[in-house]
Amino acid sequence: MSASVVKVGLLGVGTVGGGVLKTIRSQQQKLSDRLGRRVEVVKALVRNAEKQRSVPIENNLITTRFEEVLASDVDIVVEVMGGVEPTYGYVRALIEKGCHIVTANKELLAKHGTELVRLANRHGVQLAYEASVAGGIPILGVLRQFLRTNDIVSVSGILNGTTNYILTRMEQEKLPYAEVLKQAQELGYAEADPASDVEGWDALYKTYILAQLVFGESLPLHAAERQGIEKLHLGQIGLARELGYRIKLLAKASKAGGGLQLSVRPTLLPLDHPLAQVQDAYNAVQVSGNIVGDLLFMGKGAGELPTASAVVEDLAYLLTQRFTPQPVWQESEPAGNREAGEKRCFCYLESKALRGTPDQVTHFLDRAGVLVEKQRIQYDWASVLRIGMIASGFAEEHKKALHRDFGIRAEVFPVL
Amino acid sequence: MSASVVKVGLLGVGTVGGGVLKTIRSQQQKLSDRLGRRVEVVKALVRNAEKQRSVPIENNLITTRFEEVLASDVDIVVEVMGGVEPTYGYVRALIEKGCHIVTANKELLAKHGTELVRLANRHGVQLAYEASVAGGIPILGVLRQFLRTNDIVSVSGILNGTTNYILTRMEQEKLPYAEVLKQAQELGYAEADPASDVEGWDALYKTYILAQLVFGESLPLHAAERQGIEKLHLGQIGLARELGYRIKLLAKASKAGGGLQLSVRPTLLPLDHPLAQVQDAYNAVQVSGNIVGDLLFMGKGAGELPTASAVVEDLAYLLTQRFTPQPVWQESEPAGNREAGEKRCFCYLESKALRGTPDQVTHFLDRAGVLVEKQRIQYDWASVLRIGMIASGFAEEHKKALHRDFGIRAEVFPVL
Repeated sequence: MSASVVKVGLLGVGTVGGGVLKTIRSQQQKLSDRLGRRVEVVKALVRNAEKQRSVPIENNLITTRFEEVLASDVDIVVEVMGGVEPTYGYVRALIEKGCHIVTANKELLAKHGTELVRLANRHGVQLAYEASVAGGIPILGVLRQFLRTNDIVSVSGILNGTTNYILTRMEQEKLPYAEVLKQAQELGYAEADPASDVEGWDALYKTYILAQLVFGESLPLHAAERQGIEKLHLGQIGLARELGYRIKLLAKASKAGGGLQLSVRPTLLPLDHPLAQVQDAYNAVQVSGNIVGDLLFMGKGAGELPTASAVVEDLAYLLTQRFTPQPVWQESEPAGNREAGEKRCFCYLESKALRGTPDQVTHFLDRAGVLVEKQRIQYDWASVLRIGMIASGFAEEHKKALHRDFGIRAEVFPVL
Repeated sequence: MSASVVKVGLLGVGTVGGGVLKTIRSQQQKLSDRLGRRVEVVKALVRNAEKQRSVPIENNLITTRFEEVLASDVDIVVEVMGGVEPTYGYVRALIEKGCHIVTANKELLAKHGTELVRLANRHGVQLAYEASVAGGIPILGVLRQFLRTNDIVSVSGILNGTTNYILTRMEQEKLPYAEVLKQAQELGYAEADPASDVEGWDALYKTYILAQLVFGESLPLHAAERQGIEKLHLGQIGLARELGYRIKLLAKASKAGGGLQLSVRPTLLPLDHPLAQVQDAYNAVQVSGNIVGDLLFMGKGAGELPTASAVVEDLAYLLTQRFTPQPVWQESEPAGNREAGEKRCFCYLESKALRGTPDQVTHFLDRAGVLVEKQRIQYDWASVLRIGMIASGFAEEHKKALHRDFGIRAEVFPVL
């Protein structure tokens, strides 16, 4: 890479890929000044060569055949096509050929990062992935910096903009999940197939990556706690709000006595908690270090230019660094059973045909040793009873008993 | 600095100095692993050698004579004694001797940074100052990173924890300024002489440093707009709140058509603005980049350990870098007159003996071409009239006329 031009290959020219092209062009002077070389995209892999694109790109750069990218003389490849197949094979082949890789692909990293990091180290190439977590927020760089002097205890945050947008709209406009999702799809905030976002997968991939960076290990994805927002309804959001909380899809990686924990779950945050203020499609990450205390970073988590900013910064940074192998990624099985029925939680009880009275329910829980801190009761016109309570000591056995004795369905959410 | 020990001198063992000692000790293993050398404090300058300190420090390290520090074989000096005299002379002498400097001293940098940066470059030593702005928030490092790919349009934020604490308490407890200040002094949140904080100097020093970093130049301190919180009262805070705003001491550096602007002023922020949510002694910085968009960074802006974290990180970072001269600091006079009477602002009108009626005041402003968007009127038991309005086009001439014709005192604050 000593020539006067850095030759960049691009896998994928969708939203982020288009942003990368635009950014490389608009910031060319800044990049050349910094690197002492021009940065040029010399090959771009697309699925459909005929498609109209928002960013003009010369026909001779475009190809639909990965082999052409592999055979070209690119120094560095930006992977923004997403998905695992065929992407994984492409990235492996490029690393084996000696190309540096910049990727925004959290799914690929969460599923094959351990192999890719090892492969990159073996072939002496760099694998950079700032854009894979929290878009334009330079959270990985900041965490690397803190890790130098601090021990990091936990990282948590709102890592998926689509679900945060949906939850914000549901609460503000009192519209049901399905309707808000449809609107979000029409506005381009949600994909046609929203599963990866709304089921919490996307946030979990990012949490997995954060754990690798901060703790040097992660849990296999199947061992993490993952719950999406697709079953949340207005009854829960409304009662939580009456109790002084807002429901957010909270992602968390922490390491304490009980070992490493990864979770993505709808979680109640007190209204004055900084993360409760993060609305719409914004992302935020909260870091707790033993010296620095709590820090919060907030910004647009997705979108063409914020993500492109992170990709181009990775690209430029990588070109100014000498290769040093990065710490290997490891997976460990979870240490033990999670304790149950101890922590403070939000219990949502619902019944369409209550056997008994709300008072009898309260008395039952009291006798069973469940400590209720606050509660709100709602009856709607169809005589559905809803009770929301902030409680401690609620366990699986109480859930079963409520169903058996009172005809109540209970759901439990963590409270921060 | 090739020996197996890094010899550190410390100027000042107050709150931050104590935190630096603690952090170097508690994180020694991490530091040695990273640097390949032990970090040892070998000399510490104090004012009073007899004073009891919260951090134990060996007697033979302590000195009250700067000459002893200068004559010792320290490689690097951490300056956390504060103030300009005699600190400026000490730092100059150390740079001239070839010592690297890590400082948390915003006043020194805002008043003599241009000379110190030039001197450090000339003598081939590094001058690091992450800890001087926003305590533990690594804002300077993050800005340097963004500047590589983004053009930064503005940096603004809440940069002084003491005043933010006072404003939060005034609003929440409806207590007057003097009383809250007294409480803050008792709790150690405010100094015995609070002028530097409450008059906005401390925030202005930090804004000056941010401008040097982001725009490569700053205004001389006398040319910046600076207004403190010492004259704010509950009437203003209450009316702003009724209009949907919270008053914060907002610091801002921006560069647009009209040239570079620096300001520190009590400013109205809409309640749902992310900076309005920053309460108590927290700091926050908002950065607007042309590619990345808006980002917000929030954390404890002061305190023993957060600031020490930034100092020790600077120290360790500096020891792993080869010397490269840093961009020189420059000061330029402001480009031209600020436009007046155009922008949207909060007008606070008060009268103890109104000549006329509130309606006549409103009609006067309307005829004078002041566009009032929203207003709230309050009469208190002592028949003081207070009007708060969000308005555009309010100018100095209207202020004079209100006083002359109605016996009204008017004050104007910017609105974000």
